Amino acid sequence: MTISINHLLIILDLIGVFAFAISGASAGVERRLDLFGVLVLSFVAATFGGLLRDVLIGDIPPAALTNLAYLWAALGAGLAVFFWSSWVAKLKNPVLFFDAVGLSFFMVAGTQKALSFGITPVMAAILGVLTGIGGGVMRDVLLAQIPTVLRAEVYALAALAGAAVIVGGDALNLPPAPCALAGAAVCLILRLLAIRRGWKLPSARTKSDPEHPTNRIEN
Amino acid sequence: MTISINHLLIILDLIGVFAFAISGASAGVERRLDLFGVLVLSFVAATFGGLLRDVLIGDIPPAALTNLAYLWAALGAGLAVFFWSSWVAKLKNPVLFFDAVGLSFFMVAGTQKALSFGITPVMAAILGVLTGIGGGVMRDVLLAQIPTVLRAEVYALAALAGAAVIVGGDALNLPPAPCALAGAAVCLILRLLAIRRGWKLPSARTKSDPEHPTNRIEN
Amino acid sequence: MTISINHLLIILDLIGVFAFAISGASAGVERRLDLFGVLVLSFVAATFGGLLRDVLIGDIPPAALTNLAYLWAALGAGLAVFFWSSWVAKLKNPVLFFDAVGLSFFMVAGTQKALSFGITPVMAAILGVLTGIGGGVMRDVLLAQIPTVLRAEVYALAALAGAAVIVGGDALNLPPAPCALAGAAVCLILRLLAIRRGWKLPSARTKSDPEHPTNRIEN
Repeated sequence: MTISINHLLIILDLIGVFAFAISGASAGVERRLDLFGVLVLSFVAATFGGLLRDVLIGDIPPAALTNLAYLWAALGAGLAVFFWSSWVAKLKNPVLFFDAVGLSFFMVAGTQKALSFGITPVMAAILGVLTGIGGGVMRDVLLAQIPTVLRAEVYALAALAGAAVIVGGDALNLPPAPCALAGAAVCLILRLLAIRRGWKLPSARTKSDPEHPTNRIEN
Repeated sequence: MTISINHLLIILDLIGVFAFAISGASAGVERRLDLFGVLVLSFVAATFGGLLRDVLIGDIPPAALTNLAYLWAALGAGLAVFFWSSWVAKLKNPVLFFDAVGLSFFMVAGTQKALSFGITPVMAAILGVLTGIGGGVMRDVLLAQIPTVLRAEVYALAALAGAAVIVGGDALNLPPAPCALAGAAVCLILRLLAIRRGWKLPSARTKSDPEHPTNRIEN
Repeated sequence: MTISINHLLIILDLIGVFAFAISGASAGVERRLDLFGVLVLSFVAATFGGLLRDVLIGDIPPAALTNLAYLWAALGAGLAVFFWSSWVAKLKNPVLFFDAVGLSFFMVAGTQKALSFGITPVMAAILGVLTGIGGGVMRDVLLAQIPTVLRAEVYALAALAGAAVIVGGDALNLPPAPCALAGAAVCLILRLLAIRRGWKLPSARTKSDPEHPTNRIEN
């Protein structure tokens, strides 16, 4: 069985779309948005990373606007979360988990696509990270929160480690599919371990008032 | 009298620009921004939807950057609101009303332009909705609020209903100008009725703490 | 010694990148983000203005994604701020100062590049201002604050005055390098004077409740 790069990219993208749509919809339900707000948040969270990548590398119109599969995956996930929100709420931290899955698969798809458009390795990895974090950042921006990616957790670093695997494999001319899976695994495992074990990166010591209400980082 | 598609698009765009500029400026005045902040908010609110559409369908540089009419319309509306803000404040909910007008006209212009660039019908409707909501979303994001479109009101749904009229008319080869007007009317009437009658879409029941301060959705 | 337009643009861009990266990192440290959050904020604050400009004028992929110098400049500035944050904190208002430097140089680079892409003078000036304010706006949006540019200070106006110098010089066929320096000086001096003397633009008088918590504009 052979999987072409193009099919692989579409499959990875759709898994990421579904995961981020669940993450976006869960966050929307938590904040008590209405049905349409939840679906809009699903779609935006699910496609913004890919849109950003495609606009930046010049693949216009972006795949998310020409391939209806993205829309249906996002809406399906959003509807499922909306109507079964009590079931979703029983999962521990569903937003965090699906966010990690979406991060991994979008990072892979973004890095691979950037490489296939001739972007240099370091920037392809950065672009993969941007693709991976774009949807979650926009989800949090729309909810008027400081994005998860900027919080005291191993998030972008996990994506960067996974992207390094893919870029390194490409430089060594290894086959893309196993490299993609390895990169996704590295990113997902690091991210889930970081959530479970509470890994945190150091933050700078400042003299700013710790009681300042806007300093509080909320989940 | 015949109106070409191009002229129709520019006229619809300019009405939307003016309406969203009033909406953006009113929101800026309410939040007590200074003159330049109000004008920046007018321009961003008025042009962001169109910019987003043009970047996504590949019409670069966007019309809002090459046609000075957009700039003058936005600045004129912003200045008017700034200097006559006590008059504008007497109108009931001017932000909501002009936001509805801008939503309708941008939705029409976005849907028509997407169709004329060969985007498929479902995505043209989505792109029309995105065009319609983009300016208002960016206005609210810049004011660090959860965007109106995600709140418990019929907003994106009104735009989608109007976009469906336009896309349906296009599929039936009906003339574009009457379809555009019908779509705009459907969207505007639905939106105004939703405001007046307080129509709300259902929101998911959750067990999250209703007292949580970040849950409060403010206008 | 002759400096070509291209070299001039890259040098101006890199100074702006470094300044906005310091500004972004300082804001991130103040809000107690972790190391990666600080670096992400450095990179986004430093490159978003240029990315926005390049996407809007159609220079794809943007310089910030193809020239690694941008990345290293942003990361270097971010690391320096992170590890020497107690030193940076001793500077009075480092975020405000470096923000002013970044504003000036990005405004110049944006205006010049827009002119060289054949954008009309008025819009080239606007695009220069957008380039200058884009990074700071995105920095503040990611920190869930109302952007500095919308606050009661002379900010966008300083950038616009500098951009007018450059556009005027271009219209008179004056050599670009001195015009760029003059424009940057006008913008920087106006902005620093505005900070030092507390210049404010008028804001509209409204009857909205001044006690409304969301009205409070925080730094």
